Amino acid sequence: MRGVVMESAGDVRVEDVADARIHKPTDAVIKLTAACICGSDLWPYRGAQPVDHQMMGHEYVGVVTEVGSDVKSVEPGDFVVGSFCLSDGTCEICTDGYPSRCVNGGFMSGAQAEYARVPLADGTLVKTPGQPDASLIPSLLAASDVLGTGWFGAVAAQAGPGKTVAVVGDGAVGLMAILAARQLGASRIIAMSRHASRQRLAREFGATDIVEERGDAGAEAIRKLTNGLGAHSVVEAVGTQESMMQAIHAARSGGSVGFVGVSHGVEIPGSELFGKEIHLFGGPAPVRLFLPDLIDRIWNHQIDPGKVFDLTLPLERAAEGYKAMDERRAIKVLLQP
Amino acid sequence: MRGVVMESAGDVRVEDVADARIHKPTDAVIKLTAACICGSDLWPYRGAQPVDHQMMGHEYVGVVTEVGSDVKSVEPGDFVVGSFCLSDGTCEICTDGYPSRCVNGGFMSGAQAEYARVPLADGTLVKTPGQPDASLIPSLLAASDVLGTGWFGAVAAQAGPGKTVAVVGDGAVGLMAILAARQLGASRIIAMSRHASRQRLAREFGATDIVEERGDAGAEAIRKLTNGLGAHSVVEAVGTQESMMQAIHAARSGGSVGFVGVSHGVEIPGSELFGKEIHLFGGPAPVRLFLPDLIDRIWNHQIDPGKVFDLTLPLERAAEGYKAMDERRAIKVLLQP
Repeated sequence: MRGVVMESAGDVRVEDVADARIHKPTDAVIKLTAACICGSDLWPYRGAQPVDHQMMGHEYVGVVTEVGSDVKSVEPGDFVVGSFCLSDGTCEICTDGYPSRCVNGGFMSGAQAEYARVPLADGTLVKTPGQPDASLIPSLLAASDVLGTGWFGAVAAQAGPGKTVAVVGDGAVGLMAILAARQLGASRIIAMSRHASRQRLAREFGATDIVEERGDAGAEAIRKLTNGLGAHSVVEAVGTQESMMQAIHAARSGGSVGFVGVSHGVEIPGSELFGKEIHLFGGPAPVRLFLPDLIDRIWNHQIDPGKVFDLTLPLERAAEGYKAMDERRAIKVLLQP
Repeated sequence: MRGVVMESAGDVRVEDVADARIHKPTDAVIKLTAACICGSDLWPYRGAQPVDHQMMGHEYVGVVTEVGSDVKSVEPGDFVVGSFCLSDGTCEICTDGYPSRCVNGGFMSGAQAEYARVPLADGTLVKTPGQPDASLIPSLLAASDVLGTGWFGAVAAQAGPGKTVAVVGDGAVGLMAILAARQLGASRIIAMSRHASRQRLAREFGATDIVEERGDAGAEAIRKLTNGLGAHSVVEAVGTQESMMQAIHAARSGGSVGFVGVSHGVEIPGSELFGKEIHLFGGPAPVRLFLPDLIDRIWNHQIDPGKVFDLTLPLERAAEGYKAMDERRAIKVLLQP
């Protein structure tokens, strides 16, 4: 079968790779209907993370072709969406509500391909109510990570009715956090963005205000919009020291920061959290928790997160997709196997 | 009137000071029934915080002697307990549930004295159901800060039924967090302490287990007690880098750290919070929120937090009390005006 391999930093190839197959009784194999490139795939692409002949891809939708003998919740022919985090769904951490930290779990890989092996299928995959219309595929694919992660950011920031939500980061995850905040009933949603095309998409997804300033000037602009207090809820969707401090400073006393940007060298001053009584919560999103609800909202055309894909390419041209995202010419790239 | 003044680091005196009186229509004046010395009073005492002829004391119970023209909830003759944080109870931050960050608030001072002025009386004081029996005074006094702060630590750490709670710090606040965790229904409460007398008190307040190791060895000992996972809830009641990291490492994935130790130079690695999906929340305790419930539990003899006072002195001997706490000969000192 064909699959995307990152040979080394910046060197993405589509090659013949070993066929996906069942290794354990809890595995499933799926035929990918669509896959995509994640912002986090750019870390190794840019050399910020080591990589050596690695199969890529952790966001996926497709049709089950084979299941291991222990798999009970899906069967060949089912259309499924899976979380980028693998989870057994039965350990104490999973049942506590944190499947992305499953004690037997891990991260999905190799989903930028024709077929993929999904370990821990029962705890990781969710089947859709039927075979989806082609128009729903991008949105279902988004649920696998980028939507689920933005959704978690909004939930972690305690977005909801009556709340003012600010979102730091106008990448795909930040845009999905805006959509999530809107769905969760937030009264006011402030996108922090200085790119016209992303501002437009932010407004489409539900942003009511745009703040172009960054850092402390951005936080100050948010206080001006909120009676001097700051936002109730701030989603941090970047992962740098600057973006984390921008998020903390944009929050009001007693507010919440939900952070889903993978932390890179971030050090958070305890005295600032203490002094403002900020709730801080984040991590790899427990997408599996949200999937049934997200699939339902997509199936009923309540949300259209698939709009976040602004470039679609055949799998064979994956390298172009990486380049477009690296150069910020594309927000998010969908790959068709 | 007589009051405690810290002239400079280590120099505590009891002097004639200006009488407490009404300055604003929202003030009350109370005659102190009891006051006490806080662990946080030791920061200036030890020279870790500047101090210059400062009136001391922010934990207090007493009888109202005079109220300003705007005060509606208490009147002369009422016995009251007050929060160490002043709050108007009406601003957006107060009504959000964060009175200790009131936009018009501040910190109580001058309560180690015969009388004290309490600003923002309506939002700060709570009257008891009647004149308390003398045996209840220490417990009601504890509610003003040390109990309320320990209680907040346990609430912030999401202590409750089915939860294993670990407490970092065996000072008065840590001990009160143990009492709180017990009251909140925690299944297992692990005190981290290496002092026999404090271990005994910890067990009296509800600790089911004692861990003597500190740092990563302490966290490892807690994992051993919890099926390799760590505690659901950890209260950090010290305020140093070491204690914060001990708390984070003692928590399981998806767990909660409630921190009430005043942060001194603490830097929290974002990657550790992200990697474990730790909920982090803390700050100056919103004691005013808890006071009605705490007073009720004390009034009904459901809890006896007053046991945390292991030395009682007349106000005139306050300097001895500071010395005893500084030398860790006393956990907490009650002063009788």
